[in-house]
Amino acid sequence: MSIKDTVNDARSKWMEGTGADNDVVISSRIRLARNLKGIPFPHFMSDADAANVIHAVRIAAENTELVKQVGAVEFTDLAELSSTERQILVEKHLISPHHAENIKSRAVILAPDESVSIMINEEDHLRIQCLQPGLELEETWKQADKIDDLLELTLDYSFSEKRGYLTACPTNVGTGLRASVMLHLPGLVVSKQIGQIVGAISQLGLAVRGYYGEGTEAYGNLFQISNQVTLGQIESEIVENLLSVTNQIVNQERSSREIIFRDNRQLLEDRIYRAIGTMRYARMITSQEALKNISDMRLGIELGLLKGLTFEKINELIILTRPAFLIKKAGQEMEAGERDVLRANIIREKLSEIKFD
Amino acid sequence: MSIKDTVNDARSKWMEGTGADNDVVISSRIRLARNLKGIPFPHFMSDADAANVIHAVRIAAENTELVKQVGAVEFTDLAELSSTERQILVEKHLISPHHAENIKSRAVILAPDESVSIMINEEDHLRIQCLQPGLELEETWKQADKIDDLLELTLDYSFSEKRGYLTACPTNVGTGLRASVMLHLPGLVVSKQIGQIVGAISQLGLAVRGYYGEGTEAYGNLFQISNQVTLGQIESEIVENLLSVTNQIVNQERSSREIIFRDNRQLLEDRIYRAIGTMRYARMITSQEALKNISDMRLGIELGLLKGLTFEKINELIILTRPAFLIKKAGQEMEAGERDVLRANIIREKLSEIKFD
Repeated sequence: MSIKDTVNDARSKWMEGTGADNDVVISSRIRLARNLKGIPFPHFMSDADAANVIHAVRIAAENTELVKQVGAVEFTDLAELSSTERQILVEKHLISPHHAENIKSRAVILAPDESVSIMINEEDHLRIQCLQPGLELEETWKQADKIDDLLELTLDYSFSEKRGYLTACPTNVGTGLRASVMLHLPGLVVSKQIGQIVGAISQLGLAVRGYYGEGTEAYGNLFQISNQVTLGQIESEIVENLLSVTNQIVNQERSSREIIFRDNRQLLEDRIYRAIGTMRYARMITSQEALKNISDMRLGIELGLLKGLTFEKINELIILTRPAFLIKKAGQEMEAGERDVLRANIIREKLSEIKFD
Repeated sequence: MSIKDTVNDARSKWMEGTGADNDVVISSRIRLARNLKGIPFPHFMSDADAANVIHAVRIAAENTELVKQVGAVEFTDLAELSSTERQILVEKHLISPHHAENIKSRAVILAPDESVSIMINEEDHLRIQCLQPGLELEETWKQADKIDDLLELTLDYSFSEKRGYLTACPTNVGTGLRASVMLHLPGLVVSKQIGQIVGAISQLGLAVRGYYGEGTEAYGNLFQISNQVTLGQIESEIVENLLSVTNQIVNQERSSREIIFRDNRQLLEDRIYRAIGTMRYARMITSQEALKNISDMRLGIELGLLKGLTFEKINELIILTRPAFLIKKAGQEMEAGERDVLRANIIREKLSEIKFD
């Protein structure tokens, strides 16, 4: 898949809807921060340094063994992409918002199925990211570790025996590892247990935030949980800790759904089917309302109601209806109202293939 | 059509959606109040008097010429019907709520297509009602007048040269005529002109009220306009006056729709199609919300948007989703919540035959 396909197709490997506990866990992500020895961190380095980093990483990523592992990787200089295209990479979670903002001496390397992305000259020289569907933190960690090792065959990382991997921001020093999961938690939101759970998780050194939306609002009931600490723990501890907490949340979410479904089945079914009715017929829809309906439809699949619909289709809808994707589709900038019309059109088109009744 | 068909089928002649100005006017109705000479008004009469009235009217209605005009009429003693069945006749506008309340010595005579109904021993000995689709007041008046004449061949009406037809309530003395139209006025409601128009109409001796809903609320944007005065005017004046006012309202409603459609087309289309989405997918729906959506769908037809849908289907939906019809369908009394589920089921079934996209 070329970068042009990547920015035109809403689908990615991590959206397949497969993997363990896929009724609650959408995706698992591992990110490693790495820097090259003897070169200043990106915010201090010269243009020549930046070019050297890009060159070195590009060569390292073309390692035969690495290509065998993840497929023929594609290198892209961010300056080759339009601002909308960079924003689409952000919406697909392939690069960070920070990376998309500044195009000077920045690049990204992508695996053909988009399960691996390496940002070059973001906050650190390298940010290696592996993204898999479902709760597959250990697998994903193994994959990231393997890629890290293969890159290290060629690259000389900045590493201190005492502190571990050195990074631009002190919060990443040590393992340089951030592990995260994206969860769909409508049961805990409807039963109003989410606040308490967020509080408890924060006590464990993990961060919870709504994936979309601002402040305490989590549009679409999508939450991301990630580790905060990278120093003083070994990688496997970080991964195991997040996995164990996630397993508990998965169980709590399932119990909540069971109780709600048992006690308010008709209300819940009504809510799920009304979401479909709105998505299939609305002529204008905001991104926030679309996410709310997508969440209700996903819950419908999770409860075994909507046979014709798949998690993959749901994930695709989430990405398809994001602003940059809509602008790309329209071929021009649009007012919010125009985006709402185009969003409704795209949703109707996608759902027209599906039999719901 | 037997009375059992009448209470099992939501359709009536007046719901056909045909007739003049059917984009605004649902139906036209003429009602004549008549009493028999020498017999006390119903609230004062003896059981023997009541039986005599029923007998006399029944014989009169079997007049060959009348049967030739309206078809083989069917006589029904209200005591033969269950309370739900009587309520259905009210919901279909074939008898008055007052008539359905008390079954002692009361009867109704119906034409096969339900365009004519004669209530016996309601407030007056006879209430002759003719109901036609669209704005057809003159035609409907001619029909009522003809039936009145044919009944008078046999019946001796209580009539004073000075005061006209004598009736139980002084407001009906004179012509005994009440003419009314049922209108769908979403344009005037959305553009907030309805309040002013209601005020102006009241000044003209006409009454306006929401067809469904309480107080100033008119659920489904359905309004009834009728004359208040029956004394001191001849029949044709009453009919002409209502017709002329209705024509003005029809034009105002059409202008409002045109302006709204021109200035807010996307918002309006969104509203109309969302109504369809909700009606096609909801699993529970209140009578009030159903009427709101039915009104939006009707507006969709009026604006030329919904090709597969007809006024007849819309009118049928209004009647089908009324409480007594639902109870009849369920075969038992139901809680409001159960009615909402059954209502949603019936709506989905009705709309499943239609292609909207």
